[in-house]
Amino acid sequence: MLEKRLLIFAVIGGDIRQAKLAELLASQGHEVRVFALDRYAFTPVIKPYSLAKEACRGVNCVVMPMPLTREQGMLNAPLSGESHDLSDLFSAVEPGTITLAGVIKEDALSLAKARNIRLIDYFLREELAISNAAITVEGAIQIAMEEMPITINQSKCLVIGNGRIGKMLAEKLRALGAKTWVMARKPADLAQIRIAGHKPLTIATLERELEQFQMIFNTAPALILGRTQLRRINSKALVIDVASRPGGLDWAAAQELGVRTKHALSLPGKVAPVTSAEIILETINFILEEEGV
Amino acid sequence: MLEKRLLIFAVIGGDIRQAKLAELLASQGHEVRVFALDRYAFTPVIKPYSLAKEACRGVNCVVMPMPLTREQGMLNAPLSGESHDLSDLFSAVEPGTITLAGVIKEDALSLAKARNIRLIDYFLREELAISNAAITVEGAIQIAMEEMPITINQSKCLVIGNGRIGKMLAEKLRALGAKTWVMARKPADLAQIRIAGHKPLTIATLERELEQFQMIFNTAPALILGRTQLRRINSKALVIDVASRPGGLDWAAAQELGVRTKHALSLPGKVAPVTSAEIILETINFILEEEGV
Amino acid sequence: MLEKRLLIFAVIGGDIRQAKLAELLASQGHEVRVFALDRYAFTPVIKPYSLAKEACRGVNCVVMPMPLTREQGMLNAPLSGESHDLSDLFSAVEPGTITLAGVIKEDALSLAKARNIRLIDYFLREELAISNAAITVEGAIQIAMEEMPITINQSKCLVIGNGRIGKMLAEKLRALGAKTWVMARKPADLAQIRIAGHKPLTIATLERELEQFQMIFNTAPALILGRTQLRRINSKALVIDVASRPGGLDWAAAQELGVRTKHALSLPGKVAPVTSAEIILETINFILEEEGV
Amino acid sequence: MLEKRLLIFAVIGGDIRQAKLAELLASQGHEVRVFALDRYAFTPVIKPYSLAKEACRGVNCVVMPMPLTREQGMLNAPLSGESHDLSDLFSAVEPGTITLAGVIKEDALSLAKARNIRLIDYFLREELAISNAAITVEGAIQIAMEEMPITINQSKCLVIGNGRIGKMLAEKLRALGAKTWVMARKPADLAQIRIAGHKPLTIATLERELEQFQMIFNTAPALILGRTQLRRINSKALVIDVASRPGGLDWAAAQELGVRTKHALSLPGKVAPVTSAEIILETINFILEEEGV
Repeated sequence: MLEKRLLIFAVIGGDIRQAKLAELLASQGHEVRVFALDRYAFTPVIKPYSLAKEACRGVNCVVMPMPLTREQGMLNAPLSGESHDLSDLFSAVEPGTITLAGVIKEDALSLAKARNIRLIDYFLREELAISNAAITVEGAIQIAMEEMPITINQSKCLVIGNGRIGKMLAEKLRALGAKTWVMARKPADLAQIRIAGHKPLTIATLERELEQFQMIFNTAPALILGRTQLRRINSKALVIDVASRPGGLDWAAAQELGVRTKHALSLPGKVAPVTSAEIILETINFILEEEGV
Repeated sequence: MLEKRLLIFAVIGGDIRQAKLAELLASQGHEVRVFALDRYAFTPVIKPYSLAKEACRGVNCVVMPMPLTREQGMLNAPLSGESHDLSDLFSAVEPGTITLAGVIKEDALSLAKARNIRLIDYFLREELAISNAAITVEGAIQIAMEEMPITINQSKCLVIGNGRIGKMLAEKLRALGAKTWVMARKPADLAQIRIAGHKPLTIATLERELEQFQMIFNTAPALILGRTQLRRINSKALVIDVASRPGGLDWAAAQELGVRTKHALSLPGKVAPVTSAEIILETINFILEEEGV
Repeated sequence: MLEKRLLIFAVIGGDIRQAKLAELLASQGHEVRVFALDRYAFTPVIKPYSLAKEACRGVNCVVMPMPLTREQGMLNAPLSGESHDLSDLFSAVEPGTITLAGVIKEDALSLAKARNIRLIDYFLREELAISNAAITVEGAIQIAMEEMPITINQSKCLVIGNGRIGKMLAEKLRALGAKTWVMARKPADLAQIRIAGHKPLTIATLERELEQFQMIFNTAPALILGRTQLRRINSKALVIDVASRPGGLDWAAAQELGVRTKHALSLPGKVAPVTSAEIILETINFILEEEGV
Repeated sequence: MLEKRLLIFAVIGGDIRQAKLAELLASQGHEVRVFALDRYAFTPVIKPYSLAKEACRGVNCVVMPMPLTREQGMLNAPLSGESHDLSDLFSAVEPGTITLAGVIKEDALSLAKARNIRLIDYFLREELAISNAAITVEGAIQIAMEEMPITINQSKCLVIGNGRIGKMLAEKLRALGAKTWVMARKPADLAQIRIAGHKPLTIATLERELEQFQMIFNTAPALILGRTQLRRINSKALVIDVASRPGGLDWAAAQELGVRTKHALSLPGKVAPVTSAEIILETINFILEEEGV
């Protein structure tokens, strides 16, 4: 078990979830150094550094954020007052150091390889994806509760997509008393939706049912709600899209038609940063164990 | 059925829920006049009045808010720029007019009787209480989601009280994936709690279990969480009290001890004004039918 | 706590549940004597008696069955080869002895009083009633599964009555994937049914909906399904009546019309005798503690 | 849609589910001929044949059972008084005829190919597998209810395997009030189990927890419960194995050690033949539509 050996971590960039992760690591007894997290007030046991090179010197593991980058080539660091070039950061990491991040793009991977950094994407781990989906589901429900002047109980909800998030979301909405419809394409999904007690919809039957829904949740990474569909949505309904950009609807048409929408991105870090940090920590522990750190 | 006959309503005072109620009445075709709701922008079909006497002239029914009064003798009218004396308002109502309000105090009832007003408390109707409880439950969950940096899923939640709200709340929390404890006094309640799949706690066993809970919901109209108990609560936990004033905890001690608390009063009107207005409307319809209006 | 003191019990009459109760008492270290349970093979530690008087001599507590009697004046003793007159049995109990039974009729109470026996009805304890209801619910579901060639999942189920059993039954059926309707009379019940996510029916709307149901569960102690209603029931449907005699339907008409029915009486002792015995034991312990035995 | 065209079906062999399927086809207006189903009393509209060749002459589709064969080379026909050689049956089918069956072995496929029969395995369709899993789950629960003298409510249940059946079974058991543990191997499954609110077990932790379980359901097609594990199982517990032969336990050891076991094979046809027939019919309709029949 990792817990038995105390390590030195450099935690770099990221949002409040990354800050919480630093605190969790410290609470387990590890030495934790932080960089590019200047706007967060850490407990004294965590040491902020102003130079990446010093933060990374002699550490056992560097933890970078999820996602690693926002714009091209720049570190995702909303809690930092400055911009940080990923290339510079990688120069600060000592060759061979295990470096973890979530959602790493191709160019970052090449860059890391060129500098001989062992860069590992923890977002590719299925156990993280499952736990993350559960947080996303709860976040989507929170948004629906906040935005709507009606209760989820007794409301008519449509979930688009029957993947990991779609399945869980439909189940939780029903548990809260909603009447639930789920849209999918594959016959096997439609059978599963029916067996699970929701009403199945296909692309063909979606349009004629759309008007009755008060809350519509898109979880599918495909454009399902085009102009034709958006036109059928009730003016008091809310569309919450949890699919990553560009999401599942024609945003321009939605605005033009006055459809109420909410693109809910990166929910885990926003609605439950501590739970998010905990599941990242768990995954990091698994990886370090496997890598023999 | 009431819907067949179009009536004239004066809707007076109250919060956004009362405004939504006015809109629902208007959407059913009734003539709706509003008074003491000046900060709400109504659709043109609803007529705002600046004098109560004129608003009430010749109406079939006057609808006052829930609760009727805030401070002693004054109308509950948060959307009005002015204060309104209940006694003056009752003078404006024509003798014999059916006047509905929710949560009416003794002195208001006497006042109405003296002026020959048929004042009826719709909050005493059990069907309203049940629907209201369901909204309160969802509101409490929304607050927990907003305030906590962890998910309800996998969290440890304590519900104090096994009444209407307590039962529903424990059930919904568990449906969202929480581990649930419920505290009650009566053996029959403890049996019901266990049968329903929650862990039962008594006053005697409460104290030694308190430390583990991350969210504590009080639904009981009694002081359960005194200084001794509050001392055992985890510093990261949140106590949400949905019981009406004074609520179920020693607020002074809580503040002194740094316990995070939230007194969540009048949730239905705040978190789901439209659903609230709908259930009041339903109850008003029942009453008017029974009263032969 | 009772457990600390070992007592002598006479366990008399009853079905397999009563036999299991005797075993549970013995497993707690008490001395257990049995009478009128001859067809059950007890472990050697439990002593069968052939005379009630000897079985009851010097015991701390006599435990009689639930219900106490079947026909007028005779002990309910399906596991005995003989008939036992209640009056004779009471003569065998030493005056002043605590004697427990479930569902005691007026005449038995008078008889006990005349003989100076402290006869207490444990079925009147609400905690027992709640636990018993949960077993009845599971038993009704088991019968439905056994009798029907379709699954409960996806089936259309009607529950008549929204009392303790009705509420739990509707909830469990839905949890198993049924589509659920609940019939009740009171507006407050109808509101609760809707809030809980079932479709409410009144006596007025029952008749026109009856044809669609595949399983109908009566929990109400009133004749709801008369000849007119029975005529509307689908020929493949099953009516399970868990209300005690005479139950909630016109049995003669049902037979005549060929409606499939099942009068499911005393389910707890039949479908889960061990769980039943456990909850009776728990209740007996509470009573003995209160009575200072 | 298939329903618009009336076809001629030969329904051959199989259990009661196959007989119900014949009835469903007839109730849709198709001409239905049956063979090797002699012990079932069909309505007059269905014609029994004593020669396979005549039953199959000129039909649009032959429906054989699921599974197709029991012993090597012989038709699965428990409702027939005689044995039927598969090779003879295939000779009776006219070349080119669509022939449907469920769970077809390699040698049967070769045989069909040699005779130019279009043999299609409907059990390979995922929508059937999903619906079938739901019936199996309900059947396993029915067996647990029938066999155990305790309720599922409040019981401690272990589900081995987190596949389609395992996931659904754990969910339904919990919905009925059981405390649920699920054993799996993969980290992603363990995360999913925890997220879904069950207690996860691995092979490593299984052994030390085994003693507490009252009901153990095996859904995994692997030997998990060997002699060492079986030794730890409580003597009052029941092991229900729904995995196909050889199942997930060492049967010889179980018998020797006196572990109560139940190998629950082919549950759908036994516990819910009508629902089973309905889902087969649905799948057959899909196939015939795709095949252009």
